[in-house]
This record gives sequence, structure tokens and C-alpha cells, in this order.
Amino acid sequence: MKSPPNTPLLDRVQTPADLRKLNESELPQLAEELRAELIDIVSHTGGHLGAGLGVVELTVALHHVFNTPADRLIWDVGHQAYPHKILTGRRDRMRTLRQEDGLSGFTKRAESEYDPFGAAHSSTSISAGLGMAAARDLQGGSNNVIAVIGDGAMSAGMAFEALNNAGALGSRLIVILNDNDMSIAPPTGALSGYLARLAVGKTYLSIRDFGKKLTAYLGKRMDRAITRAVEHARGYVTGGTMFEELGFFHVGPIDGHNLEHLVPVLKNVRDNHDGPVIVHVVTQKGKGYGPAEESADKYHGVNKFDVVTGTQAKAPANAPAYTKVFAESLIEEARHDDKIVAITAAMPSGTGLDLFGEVFPNRTFDVGIAEQHAVTFAAGLASEGYKPFAAIYSTFLQRAYDQVVHDVAIQKLPVRFPIDRAGFVGADGPTHCGAFDTTYLASLPGFVVMAAADEAELRHMVRTAAAYDEGPIAFRYPRGNGVGVDMPERGAVLEIGKGRIIKQGTKVALLSFGTRLSDCVAAAEELDAAGLSTTVADARFAKPLDEDLVRRLAREHEVLITVEEGSIGGFASQVLHYLATNGMLEHGLKVRPLVLPDEFTDQAKPEKMYANAGLDAAGIVRTVFNALGQVEQAARA
Amino acid sequence: MKSPPNTPLLDRVQTPADLRKLNESELPQLAEELRAELIDIVSHTGGHLGAGLGVVELTVALHHVFNTPADRLIWDVGHQAYPHKILTGRRDRMRTLRQEDGLSGFTKRAESEYDPFGAAHSSTSISAGLGMAAARDLQGGSNNVIAVIGDGAMSAGMAFEALNNAGALGSRLIVILNDNDMSIAPPTGALSGYLARLAVGKTYLSIRDFGKKLTAYLGKRMDRAITRAVEHARGYVTGGTMFEELGFFHVGPIDGHNLEHLVPVLKNVRDNHDGPVIVHVVTQKGKGYGPAEESADKYHGVNKFDVVTGTQAKAPANAPAYTKVFAESLIEEARHDDKIVAITAAMPSGTGLDLFGEVFPNRTFDVGIAEQHAVTFAAGLASEGYKPFAAIYSTFLQRAYDQVVHDVAIQKLPVRFPIDRAGFVGADGPTHCGAFDTTYLASLPGFVVMAAADEAELRHMVRTAAAYDEGPIAFRYPRGNGVGVDMPERGAVLEIGKGRIIKQGTKVALLSFGTRLSDCVAAAEELDAAGLSTTVADARFAKPLDEDLVRRLAREHEVLITVEEGSIGGFASQVLHYLATNGMLEHGLKVRPLVLPDEFTDQAKPEKMYANAGLDAAGIVRTVFNALGQVEQAARA
Repeated sequence: MKSPPNTPLLDRVQTPADLRKLNESELPQLAEELRAELIDIVSHTGGHLGAGLGVVELTVALHHVFNTPADRLIWDVGHQAYPHKILTGRRDRMRTLRQEDGLSGFTKRAESEYDPFGAAHSSTSISAGLGMAAARDLQGGSNNVIAVIGDGAMSAGMAFEALNNAGALGSRLIVILNDNDMSIAPPTGALSGYLARLAVGKTYLSIRDFGKKLTAYLGKRMDRAITRAVEHARGYVTGGTMFEELGFFHVGPIDGHNLEHLVPVLKNVRDNHDGPVIVHVVTQKGKGYGPAEESADKYHGVNKFDVVTGTQAKAPANAPAYTKVFAESLIEEARHDDKIVAITAAMPSGTGLDLFGEVFPNRTFDVGIAEQHAVTFAAGLASEGYKPFAAIYSTFLQRAYDQVVHDVAIQKLPVRFPIDRAGFVGADGPTHCGAFDTTYLASLPGFVVMAAADEAELRHMVRTAAAYDEGPIAFRYPRGNGVGVDMPERGAVLEIGKGRIIKQGTKVALLSFGTRLSDCVAAAEELDAAGLSTTVADARFAKPLDEDLVRRLAREHEVLITVEEGSIGGFASQVLHYLATNGMLEHGLKVRPLVLPDEFTDQAKPEKMYANAGLDAAGIVRTVFNALGQVEQAARA
Repeated sequence: MKSPPNTPLLDRVQTPADLRKLNESELPQLAEELRAELIDIVSHTGGHLGAGLGVVELTVALHHVFNTPADRLIWDVGHQAYPHKILTGRRDRMRTLRQEDGLSGFTKRAESEYDPFGAAHSSTSISAGLGMAAARDLQGGSNNVIAVIGDGAMSAGMAFEALNNAGALGSRLIVILNDNDMSIAPPTGALSGYLARLAVGKTYLSIRDFGKKLTAYLGKRMDRAITRAVEHARGYVTGGTMFEELGFFHVGPIDGHNLEHLVPVLKNVRDNHDGPVIVHVVTQKGKGYGPAEESADKYHGVNKFDVVTGTQAKAPANAPAYTKVFAESLIEEARHDDKIVAITAAMPSGTGLDLFGEVFPNRTFDVGIAEQHAVTFAAGLASEGYKPFAAIYSTFLQRAYDQVVHDVAIQKLPVRFPIDRAGFVGADGPTHCGAFDTTYLASLPGFVVMAAADEAELRHMVRTAAAYDEGPIAFRYPRGNGVGVDMPERGAVLEIGKGRIIKQGTKVALLSFGTRLSDCVAAAEELDAAGLSTTVADARFAKPLDEDLVRRLAREHEVLITVEEGSIGGFASQVLHYLATNGMLEHGLKVRPLVLPDEFTDQAKPEKMYANAGLDAAGIVRTVFNALGQVEQAARA
């Protein structure tokens, strides 16, 4: 391994104020040191590397030119904020990144005053920044607001909504379009082609050209009202860039790795803008680290690695990842049924659809970071008799909730929703936790909602979803690897709304929904050993609920525990609602719902998170004992 | 009242096939008859008039030129689809519009093969159309797909996502941009200014000009791959319209009321396009009916009216509408606190924020049809110490669910969510029903979720939300008028997480969340009269739950009924979860959750909807009797 980098300049920078004391001529060296420090850190912690490497110079320039934290600097997504964290008083904690009680992998308000807005999901920065700009205007302030957003994130409708509103509102706002021609995967969508044409079409803007453009612009804005009226009367179409059409002053493209260009342009913008400005900066993801530059995904998210060779540590995998099982199962089904198509919102490798796309390129649609469109596009395909699998992480499907309700559920269209990253996600923390999908889907009339208990079950559910044509159907599965069960060659078609008994007992019933099943089995062994004969069942379906199964469990046991890796309002609510409505809760049954805790849980090791949530075997056993003990207390009271 | 219009040509048109047999020279007369028929119908039924009047000629032209239903015609929103319904075999049922068992006020797949995709929420048509186009391409079909979308709906990010994907995918797709320079209210946003410049900047495209442009375009597409490569190499920036930048062929603007322009242009597009095309059609909302043309909202949604005078029937209002109470209460609070600001997503009059905006124009933000942006914009304001009220209907807040989770709840930002149209919405039907908000919000950690039991309670909740600065807070209230209670001058600050006892009894407890409280009180009177002494309580909060109140009700009664106008997973789940977790369900309590039925309920009179759902006084009484009877059956079993 390489020794820690030598960073004399960086060592003098505790906060951005120190950085602002440096001469402009020192900034390139600072950037170099910052890059070396970033590589060294991530080689130890793992995490997001490529995006940070691409914005090293931009980060230095922004903190040099702007008066952070009074000037608000908002990083979209936050993947790229590691250099920002190093420069804003968090350098000494960087090696705790993404660990329990450590720094978040994203920006976070609670972590630093230099993070005025938390991020993690993409495309929020312009909206947040515009809100801050509006607040500043209301209170007569004069601080700057700078929102940095990638070209991939610009494909999300939300960013367009914000641009559209910003152009109309006219507040002073600086948008930095960080154009690296890839988000996580290379971007799709027409906008990306447009940006490429803009970038290729001009040489980088020199300072002199910029000055000229700015002078012309300011002259124009001075009699803005008059000009606009005249323009309107003459029917003048500006013929500018798309951003200018939306009311932005558009600067760029600028080489985002050249501090001699970046700094004066940003100073000019800082001192001269009086409305929304977009600065188009071209950067290279992975810049300055050979292995990252040469990698297809530019080291977007990496494990710990050797700095010299770039070799990443591999996690030992005894069982296949759920993502891969999903992909292989879907490929298998698609060989049998040419109506099966797959849709991803800019996450081909995260969802496993890159594998599907290799086999069925014409039946794979990557629509960009555009979950709303993805779902309604899938609904359109379903309305024509296709079998779309819209593979969207639990947390990102929240972006398309109305489309799920309005375009899919109300119309009873058979869109299939493979929901990856359901439940805790470990190092990615609360913003990516898949907590709410069972709740927000099982409350919808006509929705079928399944959870896979293991990787073989996932294979069955892929086949079941492919076979089910009556309406929408979802199946959730977690981040990470399966449990190592035997895998069938091909999945079986499960009976809709039927669970299964794993193990029959007499006193305690554990009813699991999803991958907590293995902990239920372990808990049952402990309980049996303690003389409490325990039944374990896998519900498979939150909706339609297996009412026969629930009734039997309720009637034949003293204690019934539901176990799921989801929020209140989901599977447990379906069970409780059924039992209450049918008068099955008034005969002494001790029912206890185990769900995710009512808090946004910070990053940690998954095992730790389960233990804290009481969702591991020990927690389940504890709940059973408490349920049995509580009765005695209540009787005594 | 005027007698029914004379419609000889229209009488010959049972389906679009009949329309296609007409000579082009007959189409203007058909349009005139269609307009007269539309006015006559809506004068009897009420409903959406202005939008339909604006697209009479466009509707005639589309069905004349395209081979519907094999060609897929998708109307965005669906407000404007009444003329389409008249021409597609539903004329004889038009007078049942928006009534129980009658026609939907929107397009609906179940209603007609001429409605290939249902609509109601805006901005979905391009996504759905692109899905259909992709399906057609996969199966080697040749039908056309036409998506009609208004300029207001174009401000939603989802439409942009779809354009961006369509431009990249390159499928044959026709988008008709129906530009009437207003959605419901006059539109805001920079895009609308851009479209206006486009429309004013050119004279309407003549057929000859169109032919020239098309020829040039087709020539260009013939060696598309080559051209693109060359463009890229030369860094050629097209400098076309925004739509052309996104890969669309752009036709227009065209006078949408001139059939001699519309028909040939649409024919040309039909016969000559081989990729995505956008046809920019300029129309006038309310066209051809004086009172509508002169009205500010162009008769967007109307009651029954007199055709000659345009005078609309007024519903007798004994109590103020909840919307108005909300607006007046917020104005009152804003007089006391200059940090209060209000945000609407293109619904100023629907939410009552038009009234707020008259008093506080600088503190009112209409961000366009852009719910995602609206919520994160509000979060930005909150992060700077403002008190934003993001007033979004229950059903539309679904569009911003991820922003509510990710930008507001995780960051604990005190954004206030006034949620109008919570619960059934009568004539607007299932697409607008506010069923899910309690479920999808109360499952979020740290969220405060209230429901107003009457208009005075709403006033208290506005003040409570203004005063509460710890995190996000929502309060829901229904469509329609209050119940006529005395109104305080100003609201009181409610204690967070505390409900109230309305009436104390001993055997039965009715725990209401929201405006079903009045039916609970009526039910209690019946139950008392039947010898079942009944307590009635108003929970006020679904979260945090008033645990003391719930515990008392559970301990001191034999039956506990929860009553809410929302889906499973909401208030009832909070109550059941608390009772189960704390071992209070195993002592014989008969608990019954009353929620909205597990179905998407079609339009009807609200009273009828409540009765069908078992959520009126009679239904509540019935549930109590059943609960008491069921025990005896169970004991006998």
C-alpha cells in the first residue's frame, strides 16, 4: 500500500476561510493535494470516488470564490461532496465515512453548517436553492445561492420544474451544470445529446468572451422590462440555448479542471448577476486517477482498494446477490415470453437490467433519471399487452407514487414492480432505506404485493409476476446477498395470496413477510428450546393477504408476531386490520407487530441495524417473552 | 332556457368512422354543431366546459385524420375530452356525466375503446403514448400514437422526462401541444413565456411552408446517422426550438380553430413522420361561447348554467367551504407572522391561495404544475427559517411523495402541508379521491398528521401548524362546505398529539379522525337510544397519537370503533399498532377499524359514497351491533 499523501497546503485549510486566504496561484496545488487525499481516504473507506474526483477543482474554486457558509452551496445527489467535506472541517472524520456514527456519504444538514441542504436522491438542488433564494429576497439579504447539478440529474423532471420556475421568478440564483456526460451509467435521453452538442460546438469560453457576453447581458437586463415588452411585441424569439429560453443567463461551457478559467468566471458571475444564471462546466468523472478514468463507471461506488493498482477488495459472496438473481430469473422468463420488457430509470447495473439488456437489447428501456415517466411509460406498454417490469429501488419508487396510483393501479394495468433495496441498506443510510413501499403499495386497491423470503423465493416471484396479468404486482427484496438456499432452474408460479408454513408449532406463531424469515427460523429454535413450541410461516403476500393462514395462526396459537422490514402501515396493518375486522382479536390472542423503528436510521452494518430495530432473532425472541410476561403484569394490575 | 341545438350533421356521426366519411368542407359545420351540443350538455350537467370548447375543431380534425381507435389518441388531463366523448359513441350518455353510474368526467379505459389511456392528473399523456409507441415498434405495428397535452401541463417535470426520452428513443409519436396560454389558471413559469414568444413570433404556418419544412426534414432524416455524426464532429448546434433540440420535429404554431389548416397539417404529419413530432396548436379556452370567453377562468369547471346568460346555478351554502376557511385562517396567521409564506402548484383558486395572494402577493408562490418542485422549494424556504404552507390536494401530493420523504421528513424541516380534498370528492371520482395521505404521511418518522373535524377545527389547525416549528406537519380537510359550527375569530394552538372527548359514555367508544365526527355523534345518539352508552372522541392527530386517550377508550369500553375517511394503513393502523404493541388487545376489547373501502370508488353524490362505504351514521351503528353480535356467534362456535 502507498503511504499517506504529502499535503502541506491542504494541511493549512481547516475551513473555507483558510482556503480563501490562499493565492489563486496556489489553488492548483491545493487541488492536487485534495485529489490525493480523496483517493487515499476512499481507498480505506470505500464509497463514492469517481464523482468526487471530477469536481476537485470545482470544489476548490467554489469555496475560494464564494463566502460559504453564508453563501449557500448545494450539491445535488451528494455523491460528489467528499472533497467539499474535506475542505469544510470534516477532514479528520473522513475515515468514518458511511460507518456507524461516522460521516454520511451524502451532504447532511445535521453534519455541518456548510451543508445547507441534505441530498442523496438526485435533482433536488435547484428547487432547494430557489427556495433559499426566495427566502433571501423576502428578507432583503444579499448572499449567493449556488446549486451544483450533474447533467444526468438534469434529465429528471423535477430539475426542469425548478428551472422553469426560476426563470419565471427571476431571483438571483447560480446553477452550476456539472456536465461529465455520465450520471452513474452513461446518460440516456435527448438532453444529454443536446448538452454534448453545446459542449463540442464551442471552444471553451475565454475570459474575454465571457466579459463581452456579460456586458451585453447586463445592458439588456438594465432595461429588462422594456426589452421584454418590445420582444413580445415584435414576437422576438431569442434563438438562444434552451436555458436562455427559460430565462437563464447561460455561461459556458468552461473547462471544469482549469482553475485559471473557473475562478475568474465564477467571480464574474458572483459580482454581476441579478437573476438566474447557469454555468456550464465540463468535467471528467474519475479525473486524475488512472484506474478510475479507465473504468467504465469511473469508480462511481467502490469498495476499499489498493491506491497503486486500483484493485478493489471483494466482499466474500457465499450466495448470489438478490439483484443478480432477479436479473437472471427475468432473463429466463423473457426467453419463454416475448411480451416481457424491462424498464430502468438510469440504474441498469444497480437493478441488474444491464444483464437483461445484454440478452434483450430491444426489450430494455433505460429512460434516464425519470421515475415518473418510467412508470407511466410502463403503463403505456402494459395497455398494449406487454408485460413491463419497471425495476426501481424502493426509495426511488417514491418519486413515481402518483403514477403508480393514477396510471397503474386505478387502471388495473399489469405493470410489474421488482423492488430492490427494500428495507435497510447499510452504509447508504436513511435516504436510501426502503422502508415505505409495502405501506404505500398495499394500501392501493387491487395491488398484489409480495416479499421474497430468500433468493429461491425471488425466482418464484419473478415467474409469478410474469404470469400474473390481472393488474399491478410488486415484489420486494433487499440489498445484498441471498442466504444460500438451493436454487430451482426456473421459478414456480405461486398461488396469489397464499403463504406457507415453514415449521409447525403450537404456542407461538411467527409470521414473516420477506427476508426476516431466516431470523424467525432461528428465533423459533430458541423458543422451542425454551419450551415454547413455535410455528413459523412465510406470508409471501401482504396483499391479497392469506386470510386462511392468518386465521389459523391466530386461532391455534397464544402469541402471534408479525415480522417485516418495513414501516408501520404495511404488512402488519393488513394482518391487524383483518383480525380486528373479523373479530379475531378479542379472545386473548397476544399479537405483536414488529416493524422498522419509527425513525430515520443512520448508516451502520446491517446486522447492527437489525439488532437495534429488534428485528433479529434475539429481538423476536425478546418480543415473544415480553408478550407472554406482559399478560401476567396486566392481570396483576 | 334555450331549446336543444339543431345538429343535423352531428346526428349522422355515431362513431369517428362516420366522421371520416364527411367531406372536409362539412367539418366546420360539424364543429359548430358539436360546440352547441357541448354547451347544451354542460349547461345541464355542470362540469368542465372551457377546455372542451377550446378543442372542438382539434377533436374533429384528429378523428377525421386519424384512424381511431386503431390509432391511439390520448388526451392529457381529460378535462377537454367531452367533445371527444360525444364523437365516440357516448353522446347519448353525456347527460349522465360525473353522476353515479354515469360517464366519467375524464377519459377512462373501461368506458370506451376510444380512450386508450385514462387521465385526470395532468402531464401523463406523452409518457403513456411513448409506451404505446414502443409497444407498436416491438410488435412491428404501424398505427399512429397521438398525445394531446396543454401548455400548462408541459410545466410538469414528467412531461419533460417523456420528451427527453422520446427524443432519444426516436419512435414515431405525435405530440399535439395544445397551447391556450392557460391551464386552469393563467400559467406561470418561464416555459409559458417561451411558448408565447414562439406563437407570437411567427405567423401561423401555411401549408406551403409546412411542406417545405417537412421536405427538408425528411431529407435530413434519410441519412440521419450520417448527419448526426457530421453534426457531432463539427460541433453543430442546431439553434432550433427547444423541442427540436430534444430531437422532435416541430410543426407550428397552427391556428387550432381553423380546420382548413389543421386537417392538411395533421394529414401531412400522419403520412410523413418517422420519429417524434410535436405539433404546436394555438387554441382559445372557452372558444365560441361568449360568457366563457369573457370569464377569467374561461368556465374551467362550472355548475349547471343558463345557456343564454351564462349564469351558473349556485349551490346553497349554509356553511363556508373548507377551502375558504383555510385561506382566511392562513391570512389571519400571516398578519401575525411575516415568516408565513404560501406555495401552490398551479391551483391558486382551488386551494384558496388566490385570496392569500391578494393580501400577500410577495409571500405567495405559484410554481406551476410542479408538485415535486413545490415541496422541495418549500423545504428550501423552511431551511432558511420561513414557515411555508405548501397547499396541495391530497391526490396531487402523491406526485411529491419522495420530496416529502427525502427533502422534508428526513431533514425534519417544518414545512406545513394543508391537504385539501382529503377523502371522497364526489363527481371528480376515483382519480381525485384523497384516500392515501394519512397512510403515506403518518408512516413517516417525525411527521405530525392532523385531520380537522369541522371548520373551526381547521382554523385551529392552521394556527397550530403556524406555531409548530419542530418538523413537518400536515392537516387534512375535505372538499365541500363545513358543518356550520361557530367560528372563532382566530384559531387556538392545539396541544400536539392530544385529542378530545366530545361525549362521554361507558360501553361503546367511537374514535373519529376528521370530518366523519358529525356522523359519529349522530351514531352515538342512536346507540344511546338503543341502550348502548357511547363515548365519542375526536383524535385530531393520527401522529403523534394521543396514547392516553386511546388507552382510556380501550380500557373503559367494550367496543372501540375507529372512523376515518382514508385508506387502510392510516389512522386505524396507528391505533391498532399501539394497542397491539402495548398488549391492550388481549382482554376482550372489540375493536373495529372503519376505513375507505378497498376499491377505487367511482363518482357519486358524497352522501351515497359514505353510505356505501359504511362511513355514515347508519354504517357506524351497524358496525357496533355487528361487533357485539359477532362475539355471541364466536362463543357459540
